[in-house]
Amino acid sequence: MMPAPGDNRPQLRVGMIGYSFMGAAHSQGWRVAPRFFDLPTLPVMKTIVGRNEQAVSAAATNLGWQTYSTDWRSAVTSDDLDLIDVCTPGDTHAEIAIAALEAGKHVMCEKPLANTVEEAEAMAKAAEKAAQSGVFSVVGFTYRRVPAVALARQLIAEGKIGAIRQVRAQYLQDWLSDENAPLSWRLDKKKAGSGALGDIGAHIIDLTQFMTGEEITGVTGMLETFVNERPTAVESSGLSGTAGEERGQVTVDDAALFLARFSGGAVATFEATRYAWGRKNAIRIEINGTKGSVAFDFEDMNVLHFFDSSDDPQTGGYRRILATEDVHPYIHAWWPPGHGLGYEHGFVHQAADVVRDISNNQQPRPSFADGLAVQRVLAAVEESSNSGTTWTQIRK
Amino acid sequence: MMPAPGDNRPQLRVGMIGYSFMGAAHSQGWRVAPRFFDLPTLPVMKTIVGRNEQAVSAAATNLGWQTYSTDWRSAVTSDDLDLIDVCTPGDTHAEIAIAALEAGKHVMCEKPLANTVEEAEAMAKAAEKAAQSGVFSVVGFTYRRVPAVALARQLIAEGKIGAIRQVRAQYLQDWLSDENAPLSWRLDKKKAGSGALGDIGAHIIDLTQFMTGEEITGVTGMLETFVNERPTAVESSGLSGTAGEERGQVTVDDAALFLARFSGGAVATFEATRYAWGRKNAIRIEINGTKGSVAFDFEDMNVLHFFDSSDDPQTGGYRRILATEDVHPYIHAWWPPGHGLGYEHGFVHQAADVVRDISNNQQPRPSFADGLAVQRVLAAVEESSNSGTTWTQIRK
Amino acid sequence: MMPAPGDNRPQLRVGMIGYSFMGAAHSQGWRVAPRFFDLPTLPVMKTIVGRNEQAVSAAATNLGWQTYSTDWRSAVTSDDLDLIDVCTPGDTHAEIAIAALEAGKHVMCEKPLANTVEEAEAMAKAAEKAAQSGVFSVVGFTYRRVPAVALARQLIAEGKIGAIRQVRAQYLQDWLSDENAPLSWRLDKKKAGSGALGDIGAHIIDLTQFMTGEEITGVTGMLETFVNERPTAVESSGLSGTAGEERGQVTVDDAALFLARFSGGAVATFEATRYAWGRKNAIRIEINGTKGSVAFDFEDMNVLHFFDSSDDPQTGGYRRILATEDVHPYIHAWWPPGHGLGYEHGFVHQAADVVRDISNNQQPRPSFADGLAVQRVLAAVEESSNSGTTWTQIRK
Amino acid sequence: MMPAPGDNRPQLRVGMIGYSFMGAAHSQGWRVAPRFFDLPTLPVMKTIVGRNEQAVSAAATNLGWQTYSTDWRSAVTSDDLDLIDVCTPGDTHAEIAIAALEAGKHVMCEKPLANTVEEAEAMAKAAEKAAQSGVFSVVGFTYRRVPAVALARQLIAEGKIGAIRQVRAQYLQDWLSDENAPLSWRLDKKKAGSGALGDIGAHIIDLTQFMTGEEITGVTGMLETFVNERPTAVESSGLSGTAGEERGQVTVDDAALFLARFSGGAVATFEATRYAWGRKNAIRIEINGTKGSVAFDFEDMNVLHFFDSSDDPQTGGYRRILATEDVHPYIHAWWPPGHGLGYEHGFVHQAADVVRDISNNQQPRPSFADGLAVQRVLAAVEESSNSGTTWTQIRK
Repeated sequence: MMPAPGDNRPQLRVGMIGYSFMGAAHSQGWRVAPRFFDLPTLPVMKTIVGRNEQAVSAAATNLGWQTYSTDWRSAVTSDDLDLIDVCTPGDTHAEIAIAALEAGKHVMCEKPLANTVEEAEAMAKAAEKAAQSGVFSVVGFTYRRVPAVALARQLIAEGKIGAIRQVRAQYLQDWLSDENAPLSWRLDKKKAGSGALGDIGAHIIDLTQFMTGEEITGVTGMLETFVNERPTAVESSGLSGTAGEERGQVTVDDAALFLARFSGGAVATFEATRYAWGRKNAIRIEINGTKGSVAFDFEDMNVLHFFDSSDDPQTGGYRRILATEDVHPYIHAWWPPGHGLGYEHGFVHQAADVVRDISNNQQPRPSFADGLAVQRVLAAVEESSNSGTTWTQIRK
Repeated sequence: MMPAPGDNRPQLRVGMIGYSFMGAAHSQGWRVAPRFFDLPTLPVMKTIVGRNEQAVSAAATNLGWQTYSTDWRSAVTSDDLDLIDVCTPGDTHAEIAIAALEAGKHVMCEKPLANTVEEAEAMAKAAEKAAQSGVFSVVGFTYRRVPAVALARQLIAEGKIGAIRQVRAQYLQDWLSDENAPLSWRLDKKKAGSGALGDIGAHIIDLTQFMTGEEITGVTGMLETFVNERPTAVESSGLSGTAGEERGQVTVDDAALFLARFSGGAVATFEATRYAWGRKNAIRIEINGTKGSVAFDFEDMNVLHFFDSSDDPQTGGYRRILATEDVHPYIHAWWPPGHGLGYEHGFVHQAADVVRDISNNQQPRPSFADGLAVQRVLAAVEESSNSGTTWTQIRK
Repeated sequence: MMPAPGDNRPQLRVGMIGYSFMGAAHSQGWRVAPRFFDLPTLPVMKTIVGRNEQAVSAAATNLGWQTYSTDWRSAVTSDDLDLIDVCTPGDTHAEIAIAALEAGKHVMCEKPLANTVEEAEAMAKAAEKAAQSGVFSVVGFTYRRVPAVALARQLIAEGKIGAIRQVRAQYLQDWLSDENAPLSWRLDKKKAGSGALGDIGAHIIDLTQFMTGEEITGVTGMLETFVNERPTAVESSGLSGTAGEERGQVTVDDAALFLARFSGGAVATFEATRYAWGRKNAIRIEINGTKGSVAFDFEDMNVLHFFDSSDDPQTGGYRRILATEDVHPYIHAWWPPGHGLGYEHGFVHQAADVVRDISNNQQPRPSFADGLAVQRVLAAVEESSNSGTTWTQIRK
Repeated sequence: MMPAPGDNRPQLRVGMIGYSFMGAAHSQGWRVAPRFFDLPTLPVMKTIVGRNEQAVSAAATNLGWQTYSTDWRSAVTSDDLDLIDVCTPGDTHAEIAIAALEAGKHVMCEKPLANTVEEAEAMAKAAEKAAQSGVFSVVGFTYRRVPAVALARQLIAEGKIGAIRQVRAQYLQDWLSDENAPLSWRLDKKKAGSGALGDIGAHIIDLTQFMTGEEITGVTGMLETFVNERPTAVESSGLSGTAGEERGQVTVDDAALFLARFSGGAVATFEATRYAWGRKNAIRIEINGTKGSVAFDFEDMNVLHFFDSSDDPQTGGYRRILATEDVHPYIHAWWPPGHGLGYEHGFVHQAADVVRDISNNQQPRPSFADGLAVQRVLAAVEESSNSGTTWTQIRK
């Protein structure tokens, strides 16, 4: 047996802060991307960082990181790292990301970009400055990289549905429907910034801005909290956890509903909730243009529905495009038609895209500026809700 | 051969005003109801009324009415008629219906009840007064009588999904998406009162109030007109028509979007549009409660989706209830399981229900008061839209 | 009020034998067809015939027939009737239909045409002879007249899916899955001829021959009876009934499975069963050609799925055609797009088509010859099953 | 930064023969399994083996194997390897697998187990013998490990649908529908053994035997080749390739259709084809029992449909189980509900299951005996087809 030939590609050494749900997903991205995508640079899972040494060292071994650290500040300035991947709750994003950018590290930051517009603005400013010296940043709206979603963007950009008239977007989950589901950091305004709005509403704001290529210019919204007090969690995993004996306050919204207008004139409805019994991760987006429509539901994530009004009426109808063909975004790297992808492939695509963009000295998207644009919409929805559901322009 | 034995049931002699799309549908209701439902009173298709003698006399023969008239005023006071069925555009509803009620005739009136709250109030008042002497009225929200919809109402009334938290309702059509589709009376504010809002938005307002058993208490809304000028129609049939050379103004909304709150506290999104390419008659309603959910789409009208959170998580999931079983509303009168019903069955059910209610000296639902409740929501949406999308309480 | 102008069209006076499930469906066909379709001849519901005077006279009144009779023999020779509509169990079809044809009456006969090939041959022969003097016959495979099915036929005839390679057809019901569901005449070989095979298998044989425009040339099949003894029914309605105390033998097949080859070379799988829990009336047909595919399921009867291999792979996918557009078969007579039809519309279309064909002195389809072709396949499946599942050519 | 703590688990050193489509999928399995599943033994990607040194050495680097070899014979006897993973075409399975087992290596072998029953028998015999000394083997029917499929098996094993009455299974692809799609080794009888039958038919045979827990006892079948000659491929990837100028013979079946009977008495239809335009990887399995049904389609692979006849008829209906809950097979290792899995997760689950079984000194399933059982059915279908579609018992 001969040793495998060395990989001569330049390396991109990654340091990741955080190691729970998002840490696992991001690790899978870095691990798998170079095995399926032909990348000019090889990402290396160098260092994982967390506060609890026992937990983070175990995570290093389990997830396959070479080293670990309990000190993010030294990590972000370390000469051993080229990119800092921020997978912590939103209240720490700004501090870590800005420190890393100032230290000349590329930054991947989980969404939402921050908990406030002020933080997001500071981050976008730092990102813009860093980009001038070839240091890039990206925000983790990975649903953009689901092939069916990327295909929708492509069809719209090609004019296949014409000018956009209407958008309807819903992000429906049900993991809080049971009023005894335990509190998690996602229900704590200090940590999470907001509830359904920032956690999942942020995704459909970003997705619709991405898919239409337009910006939301104004909103009117309602935030609602159905269950104000819950048992505290004694243990957590993924989105769920185990309830303890004590009870704590829910300080975020349970559901966010808003109407919106896009820069091209389209009107829209948005809804984000974690109380839609039976819907598990239903990101449902329908966009109607002057020439056709697209429709997507993440619960059937390999499919894009497309209506082309130029089809003969005799045989016209929504097409169920199984976005698993070689010609579809990302698919050439994967399997034959019909052999669908799953949730975490978005993270693999994110790692591949970002590695390629950085290698090409090109700004990855969604940039911190894109993340800030989402943040401004989130803030406007909150502002509208707080002022009696009045129309609120997005500030620039 | 022996002559069929006479039908000894008392008769309910119907006079119908109007004979186009709704006239055909109502005729089918009166024609078919007594053949499938065991009714205490026999509806008789006595008189059809219209302004154009040639057209109305032909309609009488084609649709199977015994007599015709060109004078609705004499019809509503005629001793030969027991019930007046008003199938005209909304601007004439109030005058005709009130005259008929005052003449002691039962009234069935197409939806929306009227073009203004004032008219609707006058109608509801007349209806209330007439009811005291056993003269009843009903408004034609026939979608309530789709078996899957009636089943949803039943499940909610039985507490199967608990207290209502969220409602999302859409009525999506696409027959105006083509900007050269011709003008019809439905695009003329004088005739139709409003556009998508009153024509189809009215249905989802009524349906969600019916299904939840609650009233909408406040809204914030946007009305949008995408195409302001269209060719005039030289001929029309159903919803479509043939475009002529001239052009005219669209004076109604093309799409109506609003957020709402229900009396029990639930929050809701509503959307009505005739610009959703590829959606033909998609009345989509999802209701989430504390214990489960229901979901309906008229494009698959024989199905109700139901999620019961008390199901074992191993086998829990939305149930696709094919609402064609004997135990489902209205089905005992029809076919074996899986032999689905169509659009016009709602009109048959309406005729059957109304005949039975009147026979039993019982107020049919939806009453004019129910129709007024819808009208008030329509008005509040318009008011909100006109005042910059501000929150607007429903007036009582 | 003026009396409706008389209808000057020539009349087609119908006599119907039978008055249960099929009698109700056929009555609806005759009743409704002239109200929606512009027919050159007016069908008149003249006489209904049954053995039990009390029941048949009540049916006459309820279903709206002018007269009744308890003597089918005098009915089929009566000068008052032009067409005999045979809605009895299969064992009586041949005798009645042949007598009627010989008496110069047009005949509509419920499917399957007969209980044996011999009877069917005699019927086809009588039909052929009668046709020479302008007396026509038709067999009641009404599913051909579901718009989505007729559209599939049209697309195939136009070459839209190329030459046929594969057919898969299933007719799945579940009303016998419960082993205590009562015996009905449908489970009695003497009355029904066969079980799932002739009752519902006949439909998918006819449908696939119709849709492909080809004939089945050979089969290999298995018939299976899962439950050999059942409680006898004390009362019946539609497909179901009420179980009594006694038990009786099931003498027919519960499920029929067969492979087949079509005249153009295509290979096929067929399955008919009344034991598929959860499938209520799932007529599922998929046809693959050299250029595309069509797929249909009666449980979503207004939809045809169509795959066109010439579509750009980027946007190719099964199209969900909501067969409710004006351009689709039969739809011009009905409602706007998306306002779907139901089960009994097939009977309305049958009545309309047959009236029009007879008026035009043209052989309606499916003819008795078409019915015989189905019968021969049924017989071949039985023969194959009885001889150990061997390949069996269809005899001509 | 501290180095990640060493992994003290015992290792299972894997040598993989082959490096194309299946090689990539199996590599992903070994790579990812230990990162998500808590395994008692750590699989190590030691050696990859292929004939072409340039290609295999590149594959070693790209896929992340430590070493490579061009000599499978020395690999299977190497002291450096504990398990041999056979990913070559079917004609070489027996020789490699038996050699490996005799050398005391565990074996994972791609499906179908072999190209003939004789080879499969020899393999099963070798496997049985090896198992006595704790050397195990497994065949790569990974679709068993799709969570929704494993859930179906679990529900059936728990009696949730009662005794099995009917099975309908289809494996539909369309990559050969275009008659100019190039020849690949999969169309060469010498390499592949058979066409659709062995390639994809094998999967639905295994799946239905697995899900029901029963064996197929007899079949009657037809094999059909639609396109007898094709351009040869000059390059291939996944299932497709680039057509060259020359043409070659197709020596395998394009479609396989058969009826079958299971050991418990159930009757079944099977179909495997690569000519079903528009179906990409539609593994569709429906099983009806005395108490309920399950239905699965790989094109929506995270969903299992389940009908429970004990549900109240009012609310009964197929449940759409999104098999992504913690309580569902394999899911505890992955993401929150609704965050679906993809095709290659089956390979990850396979690696995890096999590592765990071997660690526990327990025979993994599907064993070579299970693979042989499939092979016998494949042979019986061919035999039936060759002898005029006669009923053929499965030989033991």
